[in-house]
Amino acid sequence: MAKIKKASESLTIMTNIVLPNETNSLRNLFGGELLAKMDRCASISAARHCERRVVTASVNHVSFNHPIPEGGIVILESKVSRAFSTSMEVYVDVWLDDPISQKKTHTNAGIYTFVAVDEFNRPIPIPEMVPESEEEKERFAAAFRRKELSLILSGRMKPLESVELKKLFQEPQEPEIDK
Amino acid sequence: MAKIKKASESLTIMTNIVLPNETNSLRNLFGGELLAKMDRCASISAARHCERRVVTASVNHVSFNHPIPEGGIVILESKVSRAFSTSMEVYVDVWLDDPISQKKTHTNAGIYTFVAVDEFNRPIPIPEMVPESEEEKERFAAAFRRKELSLILSGRMKPLESVELKKLFQEPQEPEIDK
Amino acid sequence: MAKIKKASESLTIMTNIVLPNETNSLRNLFGGELLAKMDRCASISAARHCERRVVTASVNHVSFNHPIPEGGIVILESKVSRAFSTSMEVYVDVWLDDPISQKKTHTNAGIYTFVAVDEFNRPIPIPEMVPESEEEKERFAAAFRRKELSLILSGRMKPLESVELKKLFQEPQEPEIDK
Amino acid sequence: MAKIKKASESLTIMTNIVLPNETNSLRNLFGGELLAKMDRCASISAARHCERRVVTASVNHVSFNHPIPEGGIVILESKVSRAFSTSMEVYVDVWLDDPISQKKTHTNAGIYTFVAVDEFNRPIPIPEMVPESEEEKERFAAAFRRKELSLILSGRMKPLESVELKKLFQEPQEPEIDK
Amino acid sequence: MAKIKKASESLTIMTNIVLPNETNSLRNLFGGELLAKMDRCASISAARHCERRVVTASVNHVSFNHPIPEGGIVILESKVSRAFSTSMEVYVDVWLDDPISQKKTHTNAGIYTFVAVDEFNRPIPIPEMVPESEEEKERFAAAFRRKELSLILSGRMKPLESVELKKLFQEPQEPEIDK
Amino acid sequence: MAKIKKASESLTIMTNIVLPNETNSLRNLFGGELLAKMDRCASISAARHCERRVVTASVNHVSFNHPIPEGGIVILESKVSRAFSTSMEVYVDVWLDDPISQKKTHTNAGIYTFVAVDEFNRPIPIPEMVPESEEEKERFAAAFRRKELSLILSGRMKPLESVELKKLFQEPQEPEIDK
Repeated sequence: MAKIKKASESLTIMTNIVLPNETNSLRNLFGGELLAKMDRCASISAARHCERRVVTASVNHVSFNHPIPEGGIVILESKVSRAFSTSMEVYVDVWLDDPISQKKTHTNAGIYTFVAVDEFNRPIPIPEMVPESEEEKERFAAAFRRKELSLILSGRMKPLESVELKKLFQEPQEPEIDK
Repeated sequence: MAKIKKASESLTIMTNIVLPNETNSLRNLFGGELLAKMDRCASISAARHCERRVVTASVNHVSFNHPIPEGGIVILESKVSRAFSTSMEVYVDVWLDDPISQKKTHTNAGIYTFVAVDEFNRPIPIPEMVPESEEEKERFAAAFRRKELSLILSGRMKPLESVELKKLFQEPQEPEIDK
Repeated sequence: MAKIKKASESLTIMTNIVLPNETNSLRNLFGGELLAKMDRCASISAARHCERRVVTASVNHVSFNHPIPEGGIVILESKVSRAFSTSMEVYVDVWLDDPISQKKTHTNAGIYTFVAVDEFNRPIPIPEMVPESEEEKERFAAAFRRKELSLILSGRMKPLESVELKKLFQEPQEPEIDK
Repeated sequence: MAKIKKASESLTIMTNIVLPNETNSLRNLFGGELLAKMDRCASISAARHCERRVVTASVNHVSFNHPIPEGGIVILESKVSRAFSTSMEVYVDVWLDDPISQKKTHTNAGIYTFVAVDEFNRPIPIPEMVPESEEEKERFAAAFRRKELSLILSGRMKPLESVELKKLFQEPQEPEIDK
Repeated sequence: MAKIKKASESLTIMTNIVLPNETNSLRNLFGGELLAKMDRCASISAARHCERRVVTASVNHVSFNHPIPEGGIVILESKVSRAFSTSMEVYVDVWLDDPISQKKTHTNAGIYTFVAVDEFNRPIPIPEMVPESEEEKERFAAAFRRKELSLILSGRMKPLESVELKKLFQEPQEPEIDK
Repeated sequence: MAKIKKASESLTIMTNIVLPNETNSLRNLFGGELLAKMDRCASISAARHCERRVVTASVNHVSFNHPIPEGGIVILESKVSRAFSTSMEVYVDVWLDDPISQKKTHTNAGIYTFVAVDEFNRPIPIPEMVPESEEEKERFAAAFRRKELSLILSGRMKPLESVELKKLFQEPQEPEIDK
């Protein structure tokens, strides 16, 4: 379990058609249905990275930018964005793909955290992850700030103990855009 | 639409039994299924607050503390935690209720953002919300910091322009525990 | 198990949105889907009353007064209406709640019978139930007549052996309206 | 629409396998799922009898005698049991069919009432129904007593105005067994 | 298990209403949903013929002639068409039945192959099947040619070793129409 | 619509986890569920090839080699294997992917035929398809023999009029293995 893995090794692609039973009364994919699909896609990436059974620890953020209509082809792509000692962050992108107009629209991005568990459901160590592409590197760096933020919000870290996050608030700088 | 509403007016209770088709291979409620139920419960609270059709704008955070077994009775309770000009934050608590042992376990908390839309799907103003109980007041205050955080992370606000958030990083203080 | 419980202790509230996959071709909630939801809601009330696993023994009556449209918010509320030695009657009310017009319409009432079972699936005694509100008292009294009726229709009681029911047919009186 | 139809013309057979997503935590067919299937089967019989679109008016009684296990083959058979002026009663029988032991067990019986509606959702007249077999004749007669009972319970008929039902309570007689 | 059975003994009838959650964006029954229903219906016929647990071995052909609209009543009828030593072919016919116009349209035909398995999931011998009606006899004969074809296409039989199939290609004759 | 497309342009990948509600009583993915998923995956490939709305015309063959257990990760990959004038054949491969053992097992192969339709549901011409890889070329050639076979079996071509198929039966040769 000491091995190091690439972000791309956990890539999972989940293409599907939006069925009527997944839509709300506006005939768009129900927010909840999409959250469920993203969780399932992300959990496969997590399992591929650590080669173990995994469980969802938290959903950190999911944005809803564009509605996805019934009958639309929806593509979910997920990859592990950073591995910590016993948890890992997974980034999921969602596109609406129109085979007739050939247009592909980015509709959602989501960030999930998973832990790997043994047969007694206890957390176990996770292999390191090495980002390669530019986007993978950016998300890898941002994952650290999100981890700090999560520790602060849950009271497990004091804001001034943070390494990266406090820098944002202590000197003038450009806004960070990481999605 | 100028009226002011209480947090309790948007209270929504969704009790249900975990059915086999909602469970993963460990026979616990699938993370994704729970996210979908929470979204649906929260959207009813949002609609009750603003008396309009609403759409999910983002999921801000959902924690998974305890698995919920098949056959378990799950109770979701949601209330609007703060209304902004055109969006509102909804807080959802989830409990596992065992009618035999009479034990009630808090298993999840989730924070969702909704916008109210008119018939052309354009955002419309949202009534103010007044917290009453101690817990409602705490969540109301924390919602403001989360709003600032969201603006910063999406690049729409510079960290040093924040009102509440930057205080956390600029002077020694006790960690904030808002869940 | 000898303790006495109040009707209100078994109150179960199940709020939900009518999804497209629950509707018939008129885009109203399918009768069968509603029956399934009512059964699930009532079974939670039954389990809460007797603090045991329960199984449906019979559906005694369900009325369909108003269609419930897709996208509508439906609220089910159930309470044990009377406990007998090894079975209990549960009353379920269904409302359509429109958060925009603020109108709440009573769409259905249903009466279900459950038995509590031990781990070998054998019926076990059920705690007594004490009605408190006016409505609870009316339903408590009517439950006895329905019990007699059920015994007569299944051949387990002769009509003239009934206590309450035969009164209805032997002296002039006002019609009973219990729903 | 003045024509007379036989009970057998509305016979509907719905065979299916109990899937895992239809079972409760004891791995038996969920009561609610069965109610939904019975409603669907009965509604086809009703539509076949009156050659019109139909909606469920009420569920009059459903008994649960034997659990139906996951993987079991369940057979629903429904027929119109009596037609009134604008409503009709449908009787549904349910069997568990074991192709290995060749044993067929009667697990449930249910009685549903439907109305036929025109394109504006208004009730329309229903053709007469003529029972032929012994069982059809018995159910046809019992349907009349159930109709009276329903009118009394809903306050639309005084008990002493009933034709058949009051006889049961006014002279010694054998118990009626109609299921 | 040496007994001989008639085709009609495996007849399975599965009537149902097309629900919104089974339709595509044209509001017709989804091809995949129909394939799933046909598989389930055929598997019951297979189990009835051999009185054993069965598993799908292959789908040999399914035609889609007419769309089946939402709300339509669909009838599946399946019968074993021929039994081989350890596998059996099942023929499934699908009709759309309109109770209002009284019109019944043949929409699909499908041919599935099943094997019977013991408790260790190993194939076991299958009873002989005797066709009786004209249609049963035609399908029984055609099943043999389909079996040869399947062996040839999978490389387990050389074309010139076939008994029936090669006749089709070696002498002028009328085209065979077996659907 | 005169353009020529590569097989790889229609590649569709559909990864998913087998949920409890998709399994049979042996806890393996239900045959019918898999058929439904394959149809959906293949239809996306077909739509991507012809950039039009498509409908399933027939399922030509689906083999079931290995059961897929609940909780397993299943990967469907489909590509157009040959385009004819108004129909196209799509080949779907299914694998079971075990992230723990890292083993990938080929469990199923399926061949579907689709037609592209205009807004009035009438068939329209389909762009040519050019195979590139060795496997694509083999499947392209075999598709022609399957097309002839289909025409013969439906009585629209006499066996001796076939170009490729009759060769198989007229001279000694090696068996063809195309799956």
